[in-house]
Amino acid sequence: MPTIVVEVMPKAVLLDPQGKAVAGALHRLGKSRFTDVRLGKRFEIAFEGDANEATLAEVRELAESMLSNSVIEDVVSVHFVGSGSQTDGAHVAGTPVEAS
Amino acid sequence: MPTIVVEVMPKAVLLDPQGKAVAGALHRLGKSRFTDVRLGKRFEIAFEGDANEATLAEVRELAESMLSNSVIEDVVSVHFVGSGSQTDGAHVAGTPVEAS
Repeated sequence: MPTIVVEVMPKAVLLDPQGKAVAGALHRLGKSRFTDVRLGKRFEIAFEGDANEATLAEVRELAESMLSNSVIEDVVSVHFVGSGSQTDGAHVAGTPVEAS
Repeated sequence: MPTIVVEVMPKAVLLDPQGKAVAGALHRLGKSRFTDVRLGKRFEIAFEGDANEATLAEVRELAESMLSNSVIEDVVSVHFVGSGSQTDGAHVAGTPVEAS
């Protein structure tokens, strides 16, 4: 069954306490070269039908409206499994996370 | 600053209640062609130094030991931002999530 991956990250302006906790743990392990960690979500959505642009557009819309909270999160990528990543929406650092 | 992305998904044998809840919500919205949803984590790790194979190997080790719980989760990908995805570890469906 074809699968779409949706990736959602907390906005750059937010503190992201979960990511901070992971970064703190890395520092305590002596891994201080890893300066910042942000923790987001990754959805794998299996679907019936064709893996075409219309499906991608539908999932992109769902990702914005339902799978993410646009007040605190950005949808950084919506792409088919096995295909090159397609960046969608602003990345946390203002640059695309993954080039197509 | 270079960034590495680590993607972690619940193992296929697990029920993943969060994913099930999202799938249920999609069905209630009439989007019944989306048959299954699984919800995992996506880490963005910023680091100082070179984006080389040694760094990737170090993060891969950290991903297995610290960023995921190997009893219930698989590390599906560890890759640099902007580079092609590199599959690492078994995928939930037993096939690579993202080809390199």
